[in-house]
Amino acid sequence: MDGSEPVGNKMYALAERLFPICRSITGEGVRQSLQVLKAYIPLDIHEVPSGTAVFDWAVPREWNIREAWVRGPAGDKIIDFRQHNLHVLNYSVPIHRRIGLSELKAHLFTLPEQPELIPYRTSYYQENWGFCLPHRQYEALPEGEYEVYIDSSLEDGHLTFGEYFLPGATEEEVLFSAHICHPSLANDNLSGVSLLTFLARELQQTDRRFSYRFLFIPGTIGSITWLALNEEKTRNISHGLVASLLGDPGGFTYKRSRRGNAVIDRAVEHVLRHSGHPYRVMDFIPYGYDERQFCSPGFNLPVGNLTRSSFGSFPEYHTSADNLDFVRPQHLETSFEVYRKVVEVLEGNFSFRNLNPKCEPQLGKRGLYDAIGGHSDGKAMQMALLWVLNLSDGEHSLLDIAERAGCPFALVQQASRALAGAGLLAPI
Amino acid sequence: MDGSEPVGNKMYALAERLFPICRSITGEGVRQSLQVLKAYIPLDIHEVPSGTAVFDWAVPREWNIREAWVRGPAGDKIIDFRQHNLHVLNYSVPIHRRIGLSELKAHLFTLPEQPELIPYRTSYYQENWGFCLPHRQYEALPEGEYEVYIDSSLEDGHLTFGEYFLPGATEEEVLFSAHICHPSLANDNLSGVSLLTFLARELQQTDRRFSYRFLFIPGTIGSITWLALNEEKTRNISHGLVASLLGDPGGFTYKRSRRGNAVIDRAVEHVLRHSGHPYRVMDFIPYGYDERQFCSPGFNLPVGNLTRSSFGSFPEYHTSADNLDFVRPQHLETSFEVYRKVVEVLEGNFSFRNLNPKCEPQLGKRGLYDAIGGHSDGKAMQMALLWVLNLSDGEHSLLDIAERAGCPFALVQQASRALAGAGLLAPI
Amino acid sequence: MDGSEPVGNKMYALAERLFPICRSITGEGVRQSLQVLKAYIPLDIHEVPSGTAVFDWAVPREWNIREAWVRGPAGDKIIDFRQHNLHVLNYSVPIHRRIGLSELKAHLFTLPEQPELIPYRTSYYQENWGFCLPHRQYEALPEGEYEVYIDSSLEDGHLTFGEYFLPGATEEEVLFSAHICHPSLANDNLSGVSLLTFLARELQQTDRRFSYRFLFIPGTIGSITWLALNEEKTRNISHGLVASLLGDPGGFTYKRSRRGNAVIDRAVEHVLRHSGHPYRVMDFIPYGYDERQFCSPGFNLPVGNLTRSSFGSFPEYHTSADNLDFVRPQHLETSFEVYRKVVEVLEGNFSFRNLNPKCEPQLGKRGLYDAIGGHSDGKAMQMALLWVLNLSDGEHSLLDIAERAGCPFALVQQASRALAGAGLLAPI
Repeated sequence: MDGSEPVGNKMYALAERLFPICRSITGEGVRQSLQVLKAYIPLDIHEVPSGTAVFDWAVPREWNIREAWVRGPAGDKIIDFRQHNLHVLNYSVPIHRRIGLSELKAHLFTLPEQPELIPYRTSYYQENWGFCLPHRQYEALPEGEYEVYIDSSLEDGHLTFGEYFLPGATEEEVLFSAHICHPSLANDNLSGVSLLTFLARELQQTDRRFSYRFLFIPGTIGSITWLALNEEKTRNISHGLVASLLGDPGGFTYKRSRRGNAVIDRAVEHVLRHSGHPYRVMDFIPYGYDERQFCSPGFNLPVGNLTRSSFGSFPEYHTSADNLDFVRPQHLETSFEVYRKVVEVLEGNFSFRNLNPKCEPQLGKRGLYDAIGGHSDGKAMQMALLWVLNLSDGEHSLLDIAERAGCPFALVQQASRALAGAGLLAPI
Repeated sequence: MDGSEPVGNKMYALAERLFPICRSITGEGVRQSLQVLKAYIPLDIHEVPSGTAVFDWAVPREWNIREAWVRGPAGDKIIDFRQHNLHVLNYSVPIHRRIGLSELKAHLFTLPEQPELIPYRTSYYQENWGFCLPHRQYEALPEGEYEVYIDSSLEDGHLTFGEYFLPGATEEEVLFSAHICHPSLANDNLSGVSLLTFLARELQQTDRRFSYRFLFIPGTIGSITWLALNEEKTRNISHGLVASLLGDPGGFTYKRSRRGNAVIDRAVEHVLRHSGHPYRVMDFIPYGYDERQFCSPGFNLPVGNLTRSSFGSFPEYHTSADNLDFVRPQHLETSFEVYRKVVEVLEGNFSFRNLNPKCEPQLGKRGLYDAIGGHSDGKAMQMALLWVLNLSDGEHSLLDIAERAGCPFALVQQASRALAGAGLLAPI
Repeated sequence: MDGSEPVGNKMYALAERLFPICRSITGEGVRQSLQVLKAYIPLDIHEVPSGTAVFDWAVPREWNIREAWVRGPAGDKIIDFRQHNLHVLNYSVPIHRRIGLSELKAHLFTLPEQPELIPYRTSYYQENWGFCLPHRQYEALPEGEYEVYIDSSLEDGHLTFGEYFLPGATEEEVLFSAHICHPSLANDNLSGVSLLTFLARELQQTDRRFSYRFLFIPGTIGSITWLALNEEKTRNISHGLVASLLGDPGGFTYKRSRRGNAVIDRAVEHVLRHSGHPYRVMDFIPYGYDERQFCSPGFNLPVGNLTRSSFGSFPEYHTSADNLDFVRPQHLETSFEVYRKVVEVLEGNFSFRNLNPKCEPQLGKRGLYDAIGGHSDGKAMQMALLWVLNLSDGEHSLLDIAERAGCPFALVQQASRALAGAGLLAPI
């Protein structure tokens, strides 16, 4: 049953379970979310105490929230956190006061250009309280006395993150990271969380050349914390992707690692080029998701960011419209396939040596070539055989060859297997 | 008389003599063809015994054919090798049998999309027999009993090839190679055979910086054989071209050597850029003519392929339409001129040192500059003088300078001679 | 008063003072011009004796002219040097003769395609005499006897040039050079002379990282002479520009140094890209102004040529139409601003080291970041802070960072100051 359901549907169902939870960079919302994931993959859940020094930062106090509302002059609840997690400014400190409209407005956040939507706002590192609401409602607020109530706590506690390490044949690692701090935003980033969960499940079942590390962490402070506590381990990271924004209908966007021409950069571009999906590739910029930390100059890890629509580029971004209607199972499914193909390229990107480098070997006598010569149908497989032979000189990997030949990696890989099987290639 | 006739006409006349001969990768057709060439240039004709190991291959048995026909149910010869060499599957083994139509059809080759043409088909390395015919005729074949007869032999013998070595001032060689195995195809490759024959004749008459080696060889097995028997000599090959498809009306096509930026690649591109003819340049691919062998990774020789229409790209390719009407003297002539200019660039591509590198020398006092200054006519020769002076710093050859200056090589060469004559340049 | 007037107006006023003087590559015209400049900047005026060997050249004899005219058959002066300096072929030797029309015509220079304009012509290195006149007038000359009179001298004397050296904090120099040999041509090159004069005045007032050398020299022979006499000093030249053609209405043209990717090349391109003005950039060619000598292979200095309309590209070039109407104060002003910004980039192009290279530092606690997170307005200054942090790895200068970030140098510089002030960056 499980196996026959499209993975996109399963990814979507997981996102549905996670959507109602109010997450932040710390607190029970993260813990609950990780517990949900633990039903899918055997996650290690780490707790890092508030105040722990992590490079230039300190792990912040833990925030938890139970209730938050605003009563209007007429006494009715006009904003209520129970109706939408986004209504409260994330990391709001507790308050219970009666205040006038103008004082209240200094604590209200809206989107004047998208007047029906609730914005997503946070104040992690500066104590504040506030509410987010549709601009339409904001404009209709009457003069009078308001009662504001936020039952939250901001106290020493922990930063919580999930980690799943899948050992492979070598210590070289592929890092996949998703941020898990956004409350009730579906594309950003339940899509990424869900995709990595199912990617991990699939990789559990395979022979792995690389080890794989999956991180489910709060944005920014989570990656900083992980890097500070695991600096030694970063030496093993050979390839990596930050996963986010993977359920919307947009074309794919790949933001290269800071290195710009790392194998992961070339692998993702190769897969996208042959995917049949629209895509664009952009150079690294020091803004975006956790690749900002992985690609800081002191680490400079080969980690890119593979999304569909890019960071901040779609109207639903960081609003109440980034919901379970915006994300669709078929888009999650396609994204999953692209990630899987990237893994296949990384896993299969070996180099071979042509054992018969002087002139072409006689493919025909090994059953690798057409018997009737003289006609010009350049068959893809025959071309792949010739490319692999011609470029297996010790300086080209299969990905190099696929790029040079302009054909899909899988075809070049298949050609290399046929040639190795015929004794014409040896792995380097 | 000989000198006044356009070389294109002479090249065409040679192609006319060679066209009726039924060539293959071995056999009397090749021998007869090389004897024809020997009347033009003092070719060495080499015979390599069947079975000789040449890298991964063995020299095949020698194939000769005398007669081949099919009689229809009515007893008349409906296909006859005497009418067209292409009618027989090249390397067909002998046969004489009566068979039904369906069994016959398994041995017939046609071009359904070009129903009037006879295809060119071979079966060198898998014993088979067959006939090639127009699809129109094939479709009209009646049921009934057919008599097939092929009087051929496939026996131990020799692989035959022609070689002409013209020594020059240095041991560095320019390799020119043409395949000579195609029966009654004019563009592919009597055009190449003919062009190289007359290029060799012309180079006999000149002072040569380089030595020149001309190969007239069967495709694939011929270059493999030559490389296997002459591996030592390949060290001297500094530049090379495979000549083919040089008589059709198409624009020029240059396929770069595997190195991609060898001097031959840059020389050919330079000549084509300034030729006034349409042309395109493509990167190396491991498919095509004998450059496949010269550019195999164990040799990686700087050998490109300069044709007019490219391999497999024109409808007449490998059909009975690639005949003496398709090839025209004026196209052969233009191709010859391009090859000659490439040789001129290779021969003249020296580097010089500016003996007065600090500031410009005073060209006026040496008669190398306009007397009346202040006007802006940038004359091509004056610019060439300035470019040669400015870039003759030990790091730029004349071809480098011509490319950078965007002017024809001959002009830069002329400027270098004037400057050397004035004592301003010294050869490096 | 002086400070409040736009620099463009002051530059134009200087050009007005210089325009009537008849300059050449030697002689009183140059001396008078340099004396005018000396009222603005404390120029050193150098006199180099005729005959001095300067590389392949010798300093020519000094030319001076007092009077020059042609009387027509009717006895009236039909051409008179007093009416326009361009009427006489520059460096004409003295003459006083009566000659017929056809002999006269061998000494007349016109522009048939611009029949109303007087051309600018010289004959420095070949003794000659001549007159320049509108082609319209030339065509109407009647048959008859003409009286030609040139009261000039061509005698041993000196080549005169001006030099102003402004020491800075280091010995590394920025070289600015303008040719001062053209008589009564406003754009070519009073615009360049005037711009450098006011640039020097401005730089006098600033703290300077670099030393600055301003040359006001006759074209070609002046730069050759300076280079021959100051070869040692060229080692200190880190950046340089030849200034000319800076008062016309055309877009900017930057001709790169021979090196092609020197810091000066990148600085000028950066400034032009962010200037809002139309511009084009071209590779070095060995023709043009004194960059020909500075970029000769024996020196290969990083010196480009920054003009508005380029050398020889506008109809007024080297004619009487290159006058004070063609040059406008606002164009001079804009050119000045571009030169000033280039200097600002050169002066400010330091490299820093990120002192917190592992992950991003917490900008918020230092007042360098927005307090309310979650919204996507990528503010330019915040991006600049992130770029400087990310690329300050010891391998990128601020100009490198500005180019990579695609933002103006000044913004990156401002970000670097803020970060250095916060203790996050250290100069390298």
